[in-house]
Amino acid sequence: MNFPDYAKKYISKINSEIKLIWSCKKTNNSFLKDFYAESTEYFLAGGKRIRPLLTIATFNAFTSELDERIIRPSVGIEFIHNASLIHDDIIDKDELRRGKPTFHTRFFNYHNKYNLKKMNASDFGISIGIIGGDVAFFTGLEVYLINDFGRNLNLNAINLYKTAFLEIADGVLIETDMVNQKNLIISDYIDMIALKTGALIEKSVLIGANYAKVDQKLYKALSTYGKNLGIIFQIIDDILGTYGDEKITGKPTDGDIREGKRTCLLIFALENLDIPKRKKLLELIENPEMTHEDVKDVKELFNDANVIDLCNNLANSYYQEAKESLDYLHTEINESEAEFFNTLLDFVSKRKY
Amino acid sequence: MNFPDYAKKYISKINSEIKLIWSCKKTNNSFLKDFYAESTEYFLAGGKRIRPLLTIATFNAFTSELDERIIRPSVGIEFIHNASLIHDDIIDKDELRRGKPTFHTRFFNYHNKYNLKKMNASDFGISIGIIGGDVAFFTGLEVYLINDFGRNLNLNAINLYKTAFLEIADGVLIETDMVNQKNLIISDYIDMIALKTGALIEKSVLIGANYAKVDQKLYKALSTYGKNLGIIFQIIDDILGTYGDEKITGKPTDGDIREGKRTCLLIFALENLDIPKRKKLLELIENPEMTHEDVKDVKELFNDANVIDLCNNLANSYYQEAKESLDYLHTEINESEAEFFNTLLDFVSKRKY
Repeated sequence: MNFPDYAKKYISKINSEIKLIWSCKKTNNSFLKDFYAESTEYFLAGGKRIRPLLTIATFNAFTSELDERIIRPSVGIEFIHNASLIHDDIIDKDELRRGKPTFHTRFFNYHNKYNLKKMNASDFGISIGIIGGDVAFFTGLEVYLINDFGRNLNLNAINLYKTAFLEIADGVLIETDMVNQKNLIISDYIDMIALKTGALIEKSVLIGANYAKVDQKLYKALSTYGKNLGIIFQIIDDILGTYGDEKITGKPTDGDIREGKRTCLLIFALENLDIPKRKKLLELIENPEMTHEDVKDVKELFNDANVIDLCNNLANSYYQEAKESLDYLHTEINESEAEFFNTLLDFVSKRKY
Repeated sequence: MNFPDYAKKYISKINSEIKLIWSCKKTNNSFLKDFYAESTEYFLAGGKRIRPLLTIATFNAFTSELDERIIRPSVGIEFIHNASLIHDDIIDKDELRRGKPTFHTRFFNYHNKYNLKKMNASDFGISIGIIGGDVAFFTGLEVYLINDFGRNLNLNAINLYKTAFLEIADGVLIETDMVNQKNLIISDYIDMIALKTGALIEKSVLIGANYAKVDQKLYKALSTYGKNLGIIFQIIDDILGTYGDEKITGKPTDGDIREGKRTCLLIFALENLDIPKRKKLLELIENPEMTHEDVKDVKELFNDANVIDLCNNLANSYYQEAKESLDYLHTEINESEAEFFNTLLDFVSKRKY
């Protein structure tokens, strides 16, 4: 079954499970009720659900009969994903995500709506956002504690859950510091995004493999597929962040440049431009207050260095490796999920949003 | 063995374990190395380690021989405790804790030291602080995944770990909203602090009980002891927050009043003052910019309502209940740990810092 059909088949089940796990907490406190209602809306407001789908498909790839037990543990990683987005949006001061208010902005609006007095609305939004993200991190654990699998498999899954976040955090910390680095090479970038974006997608696959009791030799190929899918996802994300269609992506195309973010675009440009142009580019991006004109100049230097082609070639090398892993797995997995893995890989590589 | 001797016996073992678990992550990245070095210093900078000591003592209370296996899982909850403090200090914009820089302030200073350009120091400190707290939440899980106990006991401990944080978060969320409430009664306060402070101390006890395989009837008494110890801890904390000796507590005595924090002092004052004085008190604390004179006026109204005695009586009722639980447990537990539980209860009830 191809990726869009697979998504169509499972997405409402995934969303119901997320809602069930998030809002099962009973409370009499009126603010807690509001907190869970407002945040449930946030958790259900879109998202492609690629991570739960990967857990489900990996599990199904090795089972002969339809087995819906996997739906519950498939949503664990989605809580890490959302919690990270909540905290990232606070750090980046973003007010919109997927065209809707970010988590902390929702509580900023809540504060204004009720005209609360003592704390200001911005501090209130950020406070509830920090704690809300923390709650999501812990709520994700819930799915491995009450389900229809045994304790051994659940403890393995918790280990993967923990490792996934610790790898993301390393990636994000490395990235936060990278903005101060001038002599990066593209392998530094790959190491960083393999942690920041690859880890969570890889662990989604491995959690599915764990519950399906996949043996070690196939585990490696599944890990490569997942990690590479994440790496490609991030490379395309960087390209779309500067060259995407704002109307489709919903993101402004000057954000990454203004932040001086060490995207593959910037690193390839710094690697490939001649010395005067490289110097000019560094000067432009080190300025904390870039003008509209500065951003345009940066894009021109990017074009001079032919960065889009270089990034697409980079993505393609990870695409080829992922394809090889899928070829290796082909005889061992169900046809329907083989098609899912292949079409998802194509979707992620060619996506425009 | 009394509480100070028990602490003396175990504190260096607890600290070594915290250091081992926190800094075991191998990395070649120079910023990650700095991150772990700086934050290790933070984790080891003092703290009474009451939570790990409670896990160790509860376990030892039911074992006949010295068993050091409990030291590793005893530090899990300490990571939740520290992670919560890291995030709280960001929310409250506090720069000092235990007389030393808070976590995010350390990275604010780090940014200034290296004169990093692109992001400002305050945003950098807060970013690293949010992520650093998240890392600590996940690192705490580590102690239940690699230790010398079986998988069943470890999965139970993870369940307690998760519940502990979700209860804290409910408490903190309720407290964040309470600042907007005018008609609180003291039982609202108790419900809130039982979650915010009681849960973590209770779960420290219960994790020890879990590993000692304590049976259900004793579990209840241990739970009451732990929860009440936390409630008393918070009541005394509130008293010291306004009436403590700044030189001993290291905290300014006007902070809670300025924030309009719903302490037991404030709630008792609002409950017990006559209508004109109550109105005056509400006016004073609703002002977001209180003067020095306003704070003095609030303290005078507190004194009029005799709040210190009321709070001490409140603490005493939880003290008596905790004592009853210890009496019930007395014949079932080792003498040495019975002494620890009793002397810790006295210490927490009478502490000046």
